[in-house]
Amino acid sequence: MQIDSARVKNYLAGLQESIVAGLEALDGKPFIRDAWQKPAGETLGGSGIGRMLEEGQLFERAGVGFSHVTGERMPGSATAHRPELAGRGFEAMGVSLVLHPRNPYCPTVHMNVRMFVARKEGAADVWWFGGGMDLTPYYGFEKDAVRWHGACKDALDAHGAAWFPKYKKWCDDYFYLKHRKEPRGIGGVFFDDLCIADTADGFEQSFAIMRSVGDAFLPAYRDIIERRRSMEYGEAQRDWQCYRRGRYVEFNLVFDRGTLFGLQSGGRTESILMSLPPLVKWRYDYQPEAGSPEAQLLSDFLIHKDWV
Amino acid sequence: MQIDSARVKNYLAGLQESIVAGLEALDGKPFIRDAWQKPAGETLGGSGIGRMLEEGQLFERAGVGFSHVTGERMPGSATAHRPELAGRGFEAMGVSLVLHPRNPYCPTVHMNVRMFVARKEGAADVWWFGGGMDLTPYYGFEKDAVRWHGACKDALDAHGAAWFPKYKKWCDDYFYLKHRKEPRGIGGVFFDDLCIADTADGFEQSFAIMRSVGDAFLPAYRDIIERRRSMEYGEAQRDWQCYRRGRYVEFNLVFDRGTLFGLQSGGRTESILMSLPPLVKWRYDYQPEAGSPEAQLLSDFLIHKDWV
Repeated sequence: MQIDSARVKNYLAGLQESIVAGLEALDGKPFIRDAWQKPAGETLGGSGIGRMLEEGQLFERAGVGFSHVTGERMPGSATAHRPELAGRGFEAMGVSLVLHPRNPYCPTVHMNVRMFVARKEGAADVWWFGGGMDLTPYYGFEKDAVRWHGACKDALDAHGAAWFPKYKKWCDDYFYLKHRKEPRGIGGVFFDDLCIADTADGFEQSFAIMRSVGDAFLPAYRDIIERRRSMEYGEAQRDWQCYRRGRYVEFNLVFDRGTLFGLQSGGRTESILMSLPPLVKWRYDYQPEAGSPEAQLLSDFLIHKDWV
Repeated sequence: MQIDSARVKNYLAGLQESIVAGLEALDGKPFIRDAWQKPAGETLGGSGIGRMLEEGQLFERAGVGFSHVTGERMPGSATAHRPELAGRGFEAMGVSLVLHPRNPYCPTVHMNVRMFVARKEGAADVWWFGGGMDLTPYYGFEKDAVRWHGACKDALDAHGAAWFPKYKKWCDDYFYLKHRKEPRGIGGVFFDDLCIADTADGFEQSFAIMRSVGDAFLPAYRDIIERRRSMEYGEAQRDWQCYRRGRYVEFNLVFDRGTLFGLQSGGRTESILMSLPPLVKWRYDYQPEAGSPEAQLLSDFLIHKDWV
């Protein structure tokens, strides 16, 4: 079938708006808006809208990006496991966000929803959805982990019981720092290559799953933030947060496929690297004190666990 | 020919000691010493000595590592451009350092010297030297750039006039952030695959070139530090330094072959990531004020230029 991407684009543009409105209400400071365009070309052309907040009341750095790009030729990295698509043109669109609150008791979060279409004249479009959301706390709270995973489960269970376990495991597997033998955070869901069937009905079902994930993000994250944002913290907590943020940088720059694809294919560096934290520390061979809340994050939360 | 690596190892171990002694004299605080061992295996076994200083008088974070590793099978990344070596065993040894001073007027510096031997029973060893040193200032000083490049040139000119221009350009090409279209710093020299001839004489000449680079580091860097360490600075300079350090992180985690090889092959993460700065900031689309010393760093120093 041929994909009319306008509906998906409308959903994504609206999702960006509603999430930013929700986050502005939480923070109190407006996000800036930075629209960009790149002329079409072999690798990547298109446009996007970045919404950013730095030095807010709640968020130290936050970015919510929408982008819609096209290219005349699928990049090598995207066809490595789908060689039949090499040489096709493509269209990709998505919303991607990373939020870094200042209060170390408030978790960092990432959410992304996207659609990819590979096109060739005279042939049917090849299309799929992808996305996910995952949470990276600096201090562990069981209630938050249950709320987060519960939101992920509810979003997917509406489409059948098989999705959540599969996408939860995919998230655990993907957001893993091999060189540290550590999960990035407490996980959530992650999916790619979602094309239930190449029919109108299969498209609708797949699109609906992506929407459920996108729509689940704000209420769940808002609940967690409202629960944690008034907790008092000091230098020690802030120090731990900045140290742990180093792991976020390591994951995004060494492992994250989206980041590396973007940087290597001539994407917009400042938009891509909005995922990096505002203030980060590295320290040699640091180990938190046994039994401390910092040690408990590692032992009780940064593990692969069924929270719901 | 068969390589007796003991002489090279002795030189490298001695170089680490003498550099650390020199840096301790500069800082006033002793480096800690962390010896490590990994059992031999298919990918990587060996031992090393890390010498580290954090929160010193001069250095906010500094690491000088010596390592000596062996493996039964050359890693894929090392045989990509030398397929004839696939399947050989190997021995690699080197000294590698990265120093991050606290004062933003003192530049960050990197130096590395190393030897690699690929072995197969019944066949001649294949060996080469590599290394280099490059400087990353936060504020540009022509006098420092001339001192640094002069030291590199003097070290190599002792072996013939052709080396310095070649290795200076290699450094410019290697330490380049493609996604930023920016050099990492003001350069220096970089070399790899140095095997003048597979003879006793060729080995001696190659080894001597590596030693010249290793020996040139301390006097040149010390001169620059002594010139800058008493300069007063404030929050603005410190802020700029932390922002620019983000580029160092981006280079090392996205592009640096040694870092990625180490992380992917099961190297010792905390040793490898001693190159990362202690405190780093990211900020959206930041541009220094036109005509400021910060802008001059970009326009007048972070360019490819013949300083001597």
